[in-house]
Parts: sequence; C-alpha cells; structure tokens
Amino acid sequence: MSDMLALGRSVLDSQPFSRLVGAELVVFEPGRAEISLAVADHHRQQHGFVHGGVLAYLADNALTYAGGSLLGDCLTAEFKINYLRPARGDRLLARAKVASGGKRLAACTCEIVSVTPDGETVVAIAQGTIARVDGEKG
Amino acid sequence: MSDMLALGRSVLDSQPFSRLVGAELVVFEPGRAEISLAVADHHRQQHGFVHGGVLAYLADNALTYAGGSLLGDCLTAEFKINYLRPARGDRLLARAKVASGGKRLAACTCEIVSVTPDGETVVAIAQGTIARVDGEKG
Amino acid sequence: MSDMLALGRSVLDSQPFSRLVGAELVVFEPGRAEISLAVADHHRQQHGFVHGGVLAYLADNALTYAGGSLLGDCLTAEFKINYLRPARGDRLLARAKVASGGKRLAACTCEIVSVTPDGETVVAIAQGTIARVDGEKG
Amino acid sequence: MSDMLALGRSVLDSQPFSRLVGAELVVFEPGRAEISLAVADHHRQQHGFVHGGVLAYLADNALTYAGGSLLGDCLTAEFKINYLRPARGDRLLARAKVASGGKRLAACTCEIVSVTPDGETVVAIAQGTIARVDGEKG
Repeated sequence: MSDMLALGRSVLDSQPFSRLVGAELVVFEPGRAEISLAVADHHRQQHGFVHGGVLAYLADNALTYAGGSLLGDCLTAEFKINYLRPARGDRLLARAKVASGGKRLAACTCEIVSVTPDGETVVAIAQGTIARVDGEKG
Repeated sequence: MSDMLALGRSVLDSQPFSRLVGAELVVFEPGRAEISLAVADHHRQQHGFVHGGVLAYLADNALTYAGGSLLGDCLTAEFKINYLRPARGDRLLARAKVASGGKRLAACTCEIVSVTPDGETVVAIAQGTIARVDGEKG
Repeated sequence: MSDMLALGRSVLDSQPFSRLVGAELVVFEPGRAEISLAVADHHRQQHGFVHGGVLAYLADNALTYAGGSLLGDCLTAEFKINYLRPARGDRLLARAKVASGGKRLAACTCEIVSVTPDGETVVAIAQGTIARVDGEKG
Repeated sequence: MSDMLALGRSVLDSQPFSRLVGAELVVFEPGRAEISLAVADHHRQQHGFVHGGVLAYLADNALTYAGGSLLGDCLTAEFKINYLRPARGDRLLARAKVASGGKRLAACTCEIVSVTPDGETVVAIAQGTIARVDGEKG
C-alpha cells in the first residue's frame, strides 16, 4: 500500500461516521480517489435499495478525497448529486477525480457504480467544489 | 400526532439506514417537512464536527419528505448542498419546503440548522428535485 | 446612488454580454445584489417564455455580485438553478444574497421573480459558490 | 444532414435568445447533442473572457437537447455548472449526453470546451435534469 493510501485510510478511520457506515478507501492517488462499500441491510431504504443518503455520503467523501489529493487538508464547499438508478448489488464504488484544481479550490466529479455479478452499473453522478482548509483562514 | 406525521414516521422507521443514523421526523405537513437529529459521537468526522455525509443524508431525506407531502410516493431525482459552517451543537434540524410543485415533479429547498444553547445557526442549505415514483413508469 | 452601486454598475457596463442582454444592476449593498431585466422579444424561447439561458445568466450574475459585495474581485466557482415556472411578464428581478461568507469563499442564494400587474412570481431559485479572484493566485 | 438534426436546428432557430447569442446545433442524435458558438466580442465579460452566463446558456441548451433526443418535447428542470477555467479561444463546443433516461425524466451531463489552435480545453462541466413537457400535465 502506498504511503498516500495509508494516510488516507487513517483519516477515514478517524471519522466515526465513516466507521458507522463502513466505507473503505481503496484508491487515493494524485487527482483521484475511490471509496468502496460492502452493502449491508442497514444501508437500505424502505424498498430494499441502498438509501440515497448513503450514496450522498459516498459522493461527498470521494469528492473530498479527490480534491484533498491535490489540496491537502480540505473540506467540501458544496456538491450536487443526480440519482440515476436504484442501487442494487453487494458492493458500491464511488470513483472521484479532479476536473480542475488550483491552489485553493478543486472541482471534482464522482461516479457511483453498483457491482453485481453481471458487471457495473452507474447509479449516481456527482460534481462538487473542494476548498483547502487554510484557504478560509488567511 | 396527525395521521400524516404518523404515516411519515412509519416510512422513516422502515428505512434501516435512517434507523442507523437515528433521524426523527418531527414535522410532516402539506408542503413541508422537518427532520431532527440528536447528534452523537458516531455522527462526527475527524475534527469533531458533524460529518458532511450526515448533513447530506438529512438534506436528501427532508427534501424527499417535503416533495412527498405533495406528490405521494416519490424519490429524489437530484439535490445540491452548500456547506456553510461547521456543524456543532447537540441537535440538528433539517427544514424543507416545496418551492414549486406539479403533478409529477416538485422543487424543494432545505435549510439545516444546528441548535445550541445560544440559538440556531444555519450550517447547510440545499435544493433539489423530487419526482413521483409512478411518474417514471407510465 | 451609492458609490458602491455606481461601481457595480460600471463593472456590469464593462461586460459586453451584459449589455447585449440588457441587464441593469438596481441593488448592490454589503451582502446582497439585485439585477433587473426589462423583458424583450429577443430574450424568449420558442414558446414565448423567457429562455432558461437568460434566467441562468441572471442567476450567475446576481450571485456573483452578492458574493463580490463581500469578497471584492471575484468569480463564480459554480451554481445550480431550479426552474420553477415559465417566466412571463415584462420584468424579471434576480435577487441574490450571501448565505455565508469567509475571506475567500461565499455561498449565495438567488431568487428570480417575474413581475406582472398581478404581483411577483418566483420563476427560478439558485444557489452557488463565489471565490475571491486572488484566492486562486496565492 | 439528418432529419433529426434539421428538426433540432429549426427549434433552435425559433428561439429568439439563441439567435441573439448565435448558437449553432451541430450534433443531435439519440442520447447526445452538441452546440457550437463562434465567440464574438459581445459574448465577453470585463476581463475579455467569455461571460459565465454564455457558458450557462450553452450548458442549459445542450443538456435540454440531449434530454430531448430521448424524451421529445421537454424542458430543463434544473442544472448545475462548475466553471473550471477562463474561456479563451474563438470557438466553444457544449457537448451533452444522457446519463440515464426514463419515460419522463433524463439526467444529462455536459462538457464545454474552448477550441484554440493548440487543441481543446474543458472550461466548464454541468449536469442536469430534463423533464418531458407533458409529464407535468397529466
């Protein structure tokens, strides 16, 4: 495991809510990040699909990691998510990458796919703005 | 409690993820909904503030309830959230209302406030589009 | 007219596209801005309503002015708009205000109303993120 | 020229605001659309770059065409745009495609590139929701 991924994982592990949800950081490289979730019953809504709030959490976190790969310590200023299809399957992957990055801001996109024996299906797309934390202090 | 609020609560209670997070529906009336969350340690990120994913979950759910108060069985097509300030305090309230509603679509807005002994502070704002479920079947 | 409004108008007047559209800055104060448009035939789409692109232009510009009232020289990092109703009437007003502002970023909201003899109707709502220009240089 | 592209162009030509801006529909196929703009001085803002409102107009229109290629007569329910870089160059292309489409709603994405002698640069990205017009009548 790269030092960067190990660092990213230690940050995720220090987030109580991420531990509650059970997310795992599987890729953390300059310009991109991928978070994996093994879907369990407590992630679902009333129709048995993964709750939209879980997808929103994954998008928020993956976007922030992608931006953070460039900016360092950062926060999500905002994001937007479109839900495309019900999320079925046993695993979700949130793949985010940097679309443009400056010294203090990065615009990132994220695709969330559900993984089934038949392959991958895109279930949500998101885009958001990540800001370096000290960018707001100075 | 009104029949409408009781119905809304039974739906929320049938969402395993909402039970995991611990959200409570406190207002559900034609055109608006409010979800309350007693903040606990497992809602936090690494700096001790409420995780952005929790706020996104609250916005998603409150927007959907507001839209659903008009449309009936529905889903969130999309939403966007801006994070304004770190969420401190022991309680969060996500207040959503319908900005415009037709027979199949509603545009809704949501404000998330954190409640402290000193009063309320707006920590995030969201707006989104809710679609009636059968609107996509016909 | 305040010095601030006069300055804001001179900036708008230095934007060739704003002159083409015909927008007028009518309020520019700390934390808020309002842009007015006298609707003409060249603002319409094929059904006779104001084109969504005109509303998007108004939202973009009003959000930027609101943010700029706080940040100084700035640019729109992103925004999102929900179209609520067809825009009729002879005048549109885009009213934007700051929801939260730091030294380098501001989150702003905007409401676009159409003005008819019967009163005002909200035709679109937007929210966006404004960044100080030098925030991206340092 | 395909019948579909000819039809799409006739619609664009019936939009007075699109004629004012000078947009041209260059691709209109099932699932995607592309709008081209020859940049002129009246498209600029005060620093000489293309005005954000022009980019927002292009995104709005390209997203609607992409959705309309699937849904028929439709309108933009909402969209979000991130501005990535200043738009330079003599030509802009707004390329939109359908990410998911049902009978009444489509989620679409759009990339706007500026074309210079050195190649293409992505200057903005957008995603939005398109709704069939009669979807709101029934």
